[in-house]
Amino acid sequence: MSVKLGPNRYGKAETRLVRVVRDGPVHHLKDLNVSTSLSGDMEAAHLTGDNAAVLPTDTQKNTAYALAARHGVGQIEEFALLLARHFVESQPTIHHARVQIEEFAWNRRGPHSFVRDGSEVRTCVVHHDADGRATVVSGLTDLVVLNSAGSEFHGYLVDEYTTLRPTDDRILATSVTARWRHTGTAVSSYGTSYDEVRRSLLEAFADTHSLSLQQTLYAMGERALTACPEICEVRLTLPNRHHFPVDLSPFGLDNDNEVFHVADRPYGLIEGAVLREDAPDAGFAWE
Amino acid sequence: MSVKLGPNRYGKAETRLVRVVRDGPVHHLKDLNVSTSLSGDMEAAHLTGDNAAVLPTDTQKNTAYALAARHGVGQIEEFALLLARHFVESQPTIHHARVQIEEFAWNRRGPHSFVRDGSEVRTCVVHHDADGRATVVSGLTDLVVLNSAGSEFHGYLVDEYTTLRPTDDRILATSVTARWRHTGTAVSSYGTSYDEVRRSLLEAFADTHSLSLQQTLYAMGERALTACPEICEVRLTLPNRHHFPVDLSPFGLDNDNEVFHVADRPYGLIEGAVLREDAPDAGFAWE
Amino acid sequence: MSVKLGPNRYGKAETRLVRVVRDGPVHHLKDLNVSTSLSGDMEAAHLTGDNAAVLPTDTQKNTAYALAARHGVGQIEEFALLLARHFVESQPTIHHARVQIEEFAWNRRGPHSFVRDGSEVRTCVVHHDADGRATVVSGLTDLVVLNSAGSEFHGYLVDEYTTLRPTDDRILATSVTARWRHTGTAVSSYGTSYDEVRRSLLEAFADTHSLSLQQTLYAMGERALTACPEICEVRLTLPNRHHFPVDLSPFGLDNDNEVFHVADRPYGLIEGAVLREDAPDAGFAWE
Amino acid sequence: MSVKLGPNRYGKAETRLVRVVRDGPVHHLKDLNVSTSLSGDMEAAHLTGDNAAVLPTDTQKNTAYALAARHGVGQIEEFALLLARHFVESQPTIHHARVQIEEFAWNRRGPHSFVRDGSEVRTCVVHHDADGRATVVSGLTDLVVLNSAGSEFHGYLVDEYTTLRPTDDRILATSVTARWRHTGTAVSSYGTSYDEVRRSLLEAFADTHSLSLQQTLYAMGERALTACPEICEVRLTLPNRHHFPVDLSPFGLDNDNEVFHVADRPYGLIEGAVLREDAPDAGFAWE
Repeated sequence: MSVKLGPNRYGKAETRLVRVVRDGPVHHLKDLNVSTSLSGDMEAAHLTGDNAAVLPTDTQKNTAYALAARHGVGQIEEFALLLARHFVESQPTIHHARVQIEEFAWNRRGPHSFVRDGSEVRTCVVHHDADGRATVVSGLTDLVVLNSAGSEFHGYLVDEYTTLRPTDDRILATSVTARWRHTGTAVSSYGTSYDEVRRSLLEAFADTHSLSLQQTLYAMGERALTACPEICEVRLTLPNRHHFPVDLSPFGLDNDNEVFHVADRPYGLIEGAVLREDAPDAGFAWE
Repeated sequence: MSVKLGPNRYGKAETRLVRVVRDGPVHHLKDLNVSTSLSGDMEAAHLTGDNAAVLPTDTQKNTAYALAARHGVGQIEEFALLLARHFVESQPTIHHARVQIEEFAWNRRGPHSFVRDGSEVRTCVVHHDADGRATVVSGLTDLVVLNSAGSEFHGYLVDEYTTLRPTDDRILATSVTARWRHTGTAVSSYGTSYDEVRRSLLEAFADTHSLSLQQTLYAMGERALTACPEICEVRLTLPNRHHFPVDLSPFGLDNDNEVFHVADRPYGLIEGAVLREDAPDAGFAWE
Repeated sequence: MSVKLGPNRYGKAETRLVRVVRDGPVHHLKDLNVSTSLSGDMEAAHLTGDNAAVLPTDTQKNTAYALAARHGVGQIEEFALLLARHFVESQPTIHHARVQIEEFAWNRRGPHSFVRDGSEVRTCVVHHDADGRATVVSGLTDLVVLNSAGSEFHGYLVDEYTTLRPTDDRILATSVTARWRHTGTAVSSYGTSYDEVRRSLLEAFADTHSLSLQQTLYAMGERALTACPEICEVRLTLPNRHHFPVDLSPFGLDNDNEVFHVADRPYGLIEGAVLREDAPDAGFAWE
Repeated sequence: MSVKLGPNRYGKAETRLVRVVRDGPVHHLKDLNVSTSLSGDMEAAHLTGDNAAVLPTDTQKNTAYALAARHGVGQIEEFALLLARHFVESQPTIHHARVQIEEFAWNRRGPHSFVRDGSEVRTCVVHHDADGRATVVSGLTDLVVLNSAGSEFHGYLVDEYTTLRPTDDRILATSVTARWRHTGTAVSSYGTSYDEVRRSLLEAFADTHSLSLQQTLYAMGERALTACPEICEVRLTLPNRHHFPVDLSPFGLDNDNEVFHVADRPYGLIEGAVLREDAPDAGFAWE
């Protein structure tokens, strides 16, 4: 029998890194979770345990800390590009780097005192290869939103296993995971871009009269693309967190969509991409 | 600006399905977490909210339960293929189905009693103070057990908010957290003691014909105290993990307690202590 | 051998309840996780499975929904008192009710659109017994805070296992769990009280120059008691989320407390109560 | 207003400690999560930040490691008593110690190879499209395994950010996620196939003398492909759960790879595919 090595990568996952910048008594804070993955000439490491081409994951962790010290951490996309480029350019055996960063937001309470803000997490995934190609996908996760009006669901397929009844008034609730692809890597401000995409997603969720969560998904993607010329594709994952009106009739009570049971599982799961007609090929951006 | 819909799919994630096969007094158990995703002619659903091509995720859930009832669940791969084929072949608008299943393993402890071996954690809490007093509480947590027969619940209080119907045949499932207090600290073998208490708890759970989870709790504590002279008190925390028989009558199917929906929340929570009449004062043992 | 039933209670845990109030197009939202526990004449249920004194946990769940519909949900403490009183007063076999509620905060984004705010959760635990005694403990959990200056730790005990070096500049980070006991149940506004305690805790954390997390804990409790005459005791649980400065000297870099590794485990855990000299006896408030 | 300190305690929570006993080539393993809490003369620490009575939580952690090295870990109750007694008897300011231990069970698979039986989940992902094409990927997740000998790591790339030292004896521990692609869908028994793949993966993990986790990954995939003609590709995701030998030299103790600190994050993450030379195109199987 003859077997071979297929696609592979390795790295250090979830390096928790806090970077403080001390501006006199006023401090600035960046709180990151950094994961790096490398691939390249890894045949020998897999087949014979020869590690001559392997940059240890421990070194990848050290590099994240050292570059954060040396260069600071600005926008996570820039720090991820810096890291990815470093690995590929400094090691001939490494042909491709993928860097994923999560950033946790803090609000200032004093010159050097902070409180954690919100449940959502800002994310990015950056790729950089030995040919100098680079991609940047920004995103967010755990942004929890709810509309208590303006959502309907009817006109769907009916078969022998259908028991759902159509509704013209339901709660629509989801926890948004969004990722958006930048057309290039020379974005003037990833921070401004992030704020604008987030605002677009929230506004489209709030003001779309929804006939299906799919329709809301499309509206959110379209709104972000309209507002942000620097991005060319948006991918959304929207769990439908079902809120069921409780049947109160046994207790002689009406329930005009006022009292709901919130279920954990199962949940609907709506996934989709919205992109410009002329979006360039994604390459390895979504890997 | 011109945007378009990219790759997309939708479905019902994490339908928790337990299938019992009743071979006389001997039961067989399949415990699954089923996620289905469909794709096809979904342009209209995204762009205009026209759901004519959409098979609702609720129907996908119903289908999982109905096919489990109709055909049984053999190997998960076969059940997944059955489900995927059903969706694609029965709905012309659905061009692709993806079915993902997780299966949780159970070990038999009796004809209709099962345990999820290996998930439990052994615990202890010890106190020692400056006066030389010491206490030892041993325990375990996350011991998951299930009886598919021998459990009833009726004869309870009925008030204006009661809708529960009495049952003389239900699944009884719980995740045991048990702690037991040693009378002294000079126990000849804590390891032997642990094994014996664990065995007693499992046996009492399996062979108690249960009229309430409270009765089962008491029987478990009493059994351990009877078997283990070195302990004087047992405290148990038993979440009642509700398994609801699925109503299959809309699909022309009976459900003789064979197909169950497993709920995450809410759950019953039964807590109680069983102790010897002459147990010494606990002091700070339970703090 | 003679054994007996010790302390026990039972109930429905984690009933997820969303209550919408429709004020024309403007909606108001309450999002709760309700757990109820009852105790009383439960000997027969445990010893013989006679459930005549048992109000099923399913009925407890229904009651939460029905009372939310009938009376609305104001402050969670008031809703918890309503529920607890209902169980004890309506069922002679129930002598004691404990109701615990978690409330998830939402921010308005439109007349009927909301986004989940913050990671912290507001909590309460209420007891009510058949003699009419009631206690109210309010609280919060998962309030994550960090000071990047103003924290020292030195002057501690040194023994043969000590390797920690004293520091006069460290990051102090914790996830606050706070609970505070109200002296009575006739609080004019639990909402205002909550806001004031939360504000006091945050301010004391931010502006206490800390020589130990214990000192910060005491300062937080004292500040809340000073600001809020309606409460008599504060209990705090403060995990010390260690931020270790990374040793960058192998890379020829200084680290003037600017780059930190954040550890998950182990963590320090500081627990303590601060109370008024004349605080009344707590009774069952903390159970 | 007059306030006072109420009940309090402090300590180190969740010290993850693995203790190996080397009986020649046969190793014995204890895997613990230790939490210690102390109380005593803590007024000054709370009121003024005077830490003279405080034994730091860092020292409590060191003590757990040192006593595990010095005395071994027998039954957890005995080790907890040893620790609790040590704190109270060695420090006059400490009047009370509480020690809580969780123990995770391992089953032996070889002289120095172990598996956490029972935690794993069997998985599958199936696709079926309107053209009748179908794919079946089977798998498992959360299969936790550990070798306490037979693992080395050296000969890797060294750069300016390298601090890792080569080792010829380390613990290798991972939580296996494996997925394998069936060449067709007409498998005679998916159950038998599953058992055989699982057995192959476990055996290859146990008996591969590892020079890198990549090498172990490849060996596991190759072994499964050799044993199971019905599958054509194996994909593995192997987090490297680092076990760091604790530096016991400050306490005058050797650590011949017997006492380890287990880290949660960061962790290495090794991902790779092994496939037959003649494996057919995967199509949508891995989506």
